Amino acid sequence: MSRLSRRSGLPVPADFDPPPSARRQRAWEEADRAARASRLERLRSRFGPAGVDAYLGLRREEIRYLTGVRLGEGEEKVAGSSGRFLVGGSSVVILADSRYRIQVRREAPDARVEPVAGDLAAAWPALVRSIGARRVAVPASDLSHDLWTRLAAAEPAVELVPAGSWVDDDRATKEPAEIERIAAACAVADRALAALLPEIRPGRTESELAWRLETLLRTGGAEALAFDVACLGGSQAALPHGSPRPARIVAGRVLLFDFGAQVAGYRSDMTRTLFVGEPAARDVALHDLVRRAQAAAIERLESAVADGAGRPGGPDLPDGRSVDAAARAVIEAAGQGERFGHGTGHGIGLATHERPGLSRVAPETPLPSPTVFSIEPGVYLDGRTGVRIEDLVHLDAAAGRVERLTRFPREALVVA
Amino acid sequence: MSRLSRRSGLPVPADFDPPPSARRQRAWEEADRAARASRLERLRSRFGPAGVDAYLGLRREEIRYLTGVRLGEGEEKVAGSSGRFLVGGSSVVILADSRYRIQVRREAPDARVEPVAGDLAAAWPALVRSIGARRVAVPASDLSHDLWTRLAAAEPAVELVPAGSWVDDDRATKEPAEIERIAAACAVADRALAALLPEIRPGRTESELAWRLETLLRTGGAEALAFDVACLGGSQAALPHGSPRPARIVAGRVLLFDFGAQVAGYRSDMTRTLFVGEPAARDVALHDLVRRAQAAAIERLESAVADGAGRPGGPDLPDGRSVDAAARAVIEAAGQGERFGHGTGHGIGLATHERPGLSRVAPETPLPSPTVFSIEPGVYLDGRTGVRIEDLVHLDAAAGRVERLTRFPREALVVA
Repeated sequence: MSRLSRRSGLPVPADFDPPPSARRQRAWEEADRAARASRLERLRSRFGPAGVDAYLGLRREEIRYLTGVRLGEGEEKVAGSSGRFLVGGSSVVILADSRYRIQVRREAPDARVEPVAGDLAAAWPALVRSIGARRVAVPASDLSHDLWTRLAAAEPAVELVPAGSWVDDDRATKEPAEIERIAAACAVADRALAALLPEIRPGRTESELAWRLETLLRTGGAEALAFDVACLGGSQAALPHGSPRPARIVAGRVLLFDFGAQVAGYRSDMTRTLFVGEPAARDVALHDLVRRAQAAAIERLESAVADGAGRPGGPDLPDGRSVDAAARAVIEAAGQGERFGHGTGHGIGLATHERPGLSRVAPETPLPSPTVFSIEPGVYLDGRTGVRIEDLVHLDAAAGRVERLTRFPREALVVA
Repeated sequence: MSRLSRRSGLPVPADFDPPPSARRQRAWEEADRAARASRLERLRSRFGPAGVDAYLGLRREEIRYLTGVRLGEGEEKVAGSSGRFLVGGSSVVILADSRYRIQVRREAPDARVEPVAGDLAAAWPALVRSIGARRVAVPASDLSHDLWTRLAAAEPAVELVPAGSWVDDDRATKEPAEIERIAAACAVADRALAALLPEIRPGRTESELAWRLETLLRTGGAEALAFDVACLGGSQAALPHGSPRPARIVAGRVLLFDFGAQVAGYRSDMTRTLFVGEPAARDVALHDLVRRAQAAAIERLESAVADGAGRPGGPDLPDGRSVDAAARAVIEAAGQGERFGHGTGHGIGLATHERPGLSRVAPETPLPSPTVFSIEPGVYLDGRTGVRIEDLVHLDAAAGRVERLTRFPREALVVA
């Protein structure tokens, strides 16, 4: 039986770090500016081995990481080519139509801004010529087949080379100022949930509580949400990606919150499954099981880091598959393996889901370091109930560190 | 000199329709369910001429339109293959991993749900075999080059045929229950801005007002925003896609709001450029110019519809290029053509930007009907000021109708 915390023992906002000061925010901007050159150099170091002389960047996260230009979530859809960029051997060219020109100049003062009004294919020949590129690496997962085909046809003398996910791999390893921002986003989320706890009671609806939590996040230091707040009561909690409904919270059932904040571009992601009123023994047992599964995954990381503490070159880190297996083994041993269908975790940063992956199909290569990822096992009984607990973990092998960035208590809480 | 409305004459929330009742929401759901068969038939009618026997649907809007499954904005990124669907000659198969299985079954009870856990390419051969497909139409703008290549390699016996944007074209023509929802989203936005007006005063910041407007939208009937609220004061208004900053509103400068609501899946989009305190003559003149440009585009539509009122087969509708030209001519005649860099408008519905386009590069084919699009000319003086006015217009040639769905007054308003 796990410990149950009653209202008197519930966390309060002051338990967690306050939102970052303006000074800290400026320091992060400065750190980004300073890091950009080395990020570009890391990318360019792949040019020679791959036999290319340029890289075409397409995705929001890469645009910000490598150029400084900020697009909102989903803004690529309306931005057209704006923000997309070409990295040559010594230059960076960013595309911008008239709507984005001023913004791009301001956010990426060192880059050349190229006006591209309509179709990228029409501008492509002059663009690649302007940086002298003959073989351009393109992340083939980010470019549509249609545009790939038309770029290739627009300038047959320039070869498009599938780039793999170079920048995704680079971004998986986090700089100190990136980890600080993820930690700050975790604290904003921790505080918001703590502030919400006294408002949770039977009769309020999932949608109301989701909106209240969003309000607490957005007025408590989050510049945006990492993703839409999930607030799922009772049997709805069996939907790992369900949306809040106007349905009322019922006493004696679970209430699952999955949510995250964005602070200075970087995101957090956490899940807590709370008990509203006296919990069912089944739900308490499930919560305990999931908590033990999560602990097993973290222990797997801790023991790897501890074992390698004295070794030259640092510890051998496990792969994402074996960390997943550590959590999964606990749930399987309880006969619930079939009810844990998703992976154990995912990297996080400028995007909510990024590398590394921790799952049954994750690559069998050691985890990157330093990095941040979620550990979020869950058990879902269709039509009845569901429990998931999710924390972000900062792994730094060289520093011998496995640190939870999510500080909100993870034991079972009874909130009303 | 245009008329200036002072605070006494400002619109109030009660001037606009209240949010839709639960009953109306249910009627829309029912209308969608009833329409789905004919939407699928319209898609299938393209199979024969294109020589294909199936269609692979990939995008959020298509998923909802053709299957009923609801994904949030940007959710495709975390959903993986979940929600993606195959339409065969007589069946619909929707992919779903364990996280989405229950949701997809609930929202699309008539479709077959196929569990696809990891990579779509691995499941592809069995999937196409299960519906007997040999030539599958795929929207090449929606599928990455990487996945296209891997699907083609996974089952060489099945040919992938670039589909063009069939469903985009179908979705441009709107059903009555779709137009009603866009109109309802417009009313939610109109009311929210009217409710915000008394709160606008010098000293408040752009970010504060953007958040207040979002709060009014989200608690006033919007299930989500159509996109992030833009609130841009003074010279910031010269950024057609700028983001709100913690900068204070200054008297005597413009204040531009660009925002939209989502109601029952459908979106609105509106822009108003307000005057905070006594406006500069330059800004008043720009506002008047932009208002006249917008009126000219709408008159172009009205005259086309009126001219063709008695004709068999209805009026010849103009193309999106000539409607753009009508607005642009007004701004060019004032010598500001260079300061209106973007297009005049875009269709809207399940997505914020969809067909038809109204711009200098829009297709020279008649506009669809019935349809809804924005008319949003703007003039931007870099570093100084900007004015844009945006309304949604419902065009129905057969009914002889050109109707503004945005009801908020469009004359110059002085708000503080």
